[in-house]
Amino acid sequence: MFKSVCIVGTGFMGGSFALALRETYPHCTIFGYDINPEAIKKALELGILDKGSTSLESVKSFEPELIVLATPVGSFYSLAPSIASLDIDCIITDLGSVKGHLVYFMEKHLGGKFVGGHPIAGTEKSGVENSIKGLFKNKKCILTPTERTSTEALSKVKKLWEDIGSIVEEMDPCLHDYVFGAVSHLPHAVAFALVDAIINLSKDRIDLFEYTGAGFKDFTRIAMSDPVMWRDIFIENSSEVLKAIEVFENSLKRLKELIAGGKREELMDYLKEAKEKREKIS
Amino acid sequence: MFKSVCIVGTGFMGGSFALALRETYPHCTIFGYDINPEAIKKALELGILDKGSTSLESVKSFEPELIVLATPVGSFYSLAPSIASLDIDCIITDLGSVKGHLVYFMEKHLGGKFVGGHPIAGTEKSGVENSIKGLFKNKKCILTPTERTSTEALSKVKKLWEDIGSIVEEMDPCLHDYVFGAVSHLPHAVAFALVDAIINLSKDRIDLFEYTGAGFKDFTRIAMSDPVMWRDIFIENSSEVLKAIEVFENSLKRLKELIAGGKREELMDYLKEAKEKREKIS
Repeated sequence: MFKSVCIVGTGFMGGSFALALRETYPHCTIFGYDINPEAIKKALELGILDKGSTSLESVKSFEPELIVLATPVGSFYSLAPSIASLDIDCIITDLGSVKGHLVYFMEKHLGGKFVGGHPIAGTEKSGVENSIKGLFKNKKCILTPTERTSTEALSKVKKLWEDIGSIVEEMDPCLHDYVFGAVSHLPHAVAFALVDAIINLSKDRIDLFEYTGAGFKDFTRIAMSDPVMWRDIFIENSSEVLKAIEVFENSLKRLKELIAGGKREELMDYLKEAKEKREKIS
Repeated sequence: MFKSVCIVGTGFMGGSFALALRETYPHCTIFGYDINPEAIKKALELGILDKGSTSLESVKSFEPELIVLATPVGSFYSLAPSIASLDIDCIITDLGSVKGHLVYFMEKHLGGKFVGGHPIAGTEKSGVENSIKGLFKNKKCILTPTERTSTEALSKVKKLWEDIGSIVEEMDPCLHDYVFGAVSHLPHAVAFALVDAIINLSKDRIDLFEYTGAGFKDFTRIAMSDPVMWRDIFIENSSEVLKAIEVFENSLKRLKELIAGGKREELMDYLKEAKEKREKIS
């Protein structure tokens, strides 16, 4: 479908998206833009991109049919007006983990040809050299159109993701932030805080990192995720993240009370309910 | 070395220990005791045990050289006096995740022939049918002797674990509970609480479990662990667990403040430090 696509931000997500694109549309030319020359160089060497540049101006001369933002969401604030000023007639979408108010900001600059997107796929890895072929296959991709979104742009972006092999679901931008604030951003916040707690607990008596088992490692794997990406997500979705953390704090407080009170029956119920619920999604 | 071993509690840990024992000492006879006839039946069918019974009296007639407690730690309170009353001249050890005061309780009933042990190995699985061969290989096993522990018993139990392929480390029983309260019990508490939070957040607007990605699944895998085992661990190690939870709560509180205050630099430092520390143990 798309014959020329520009990926803005050629890290892990941008690189994996380029790989998916190449597999899906072999005749599509893929152009990469990144402020970091190293990222462009690596992506070109790995054959992930056809062309690449560190100058946004060169995106205009490439004349893409689609621009895909794959940078940490905090940079969308400067990218949106910059891209608007290029005045290219093309669809713009993104791979960002925050939607909500950010979608309305993007629309203000880019109009109805912007289609918010969030593929529910990723790992704790970063960097284009870690790009994964098939990352988005059989994974959900949330699109967050608004009443302003162009029907044509939406249907083209939807078809793109379906062709890639994702399961597309449309969602209100604010509901998106509530949902992923809870199921993705909250667990990441908790994982980072848990590692921070073990750092603090290690200051007292013994280096606790010497004794971490498989459970701890699995549990904190996501704390190895890119700090820039996660700083931006936490700040851009702060309102939902903070609310989700509060609900979690209450859950933990209740658990503490059951432990402190030696409430064997209620503690058992609490753990059993969590186990049963978790087992349903495994 | 040991020619006859009795395993008390033939679930996942007891079963995996039996498999390790059989591989290490092919001529050792393995007897299993469990209050659940189904667990004994399954273990015998799977060839994990040579003999088995639901009667503690039959342990006496088996005359084991070693008894290994592999039940949830809460049952140690009734098991210790019962085993003492059998009056068998043998070494007793355990696979439990809590030591501290529990070791002193065991010693009160069983004397210096009790050697506290905690292999740092396991999964979220339970049940003898999920037993894993080689579970303890190249894994740490903590032994927690006290001044009362028989030197001979300690050296025999130590040799057993070394023969199985574990890396044995001796540790003070109370330090053990501090260490594993932090690196193991805390993450489990947090994982259970996180699932509980998602259950609560799902009550409002949407079933959030529909949207959980790979990160959430990895993160909460340990919330599928046996609730009886974890109830007992949380209650028996409540003092260290509650202290560790408090340190974690402070870490989370600090993270919340950085997010709420939009402190980009400090937030970045917080996430980066956690990432770097976590990467060292991967």
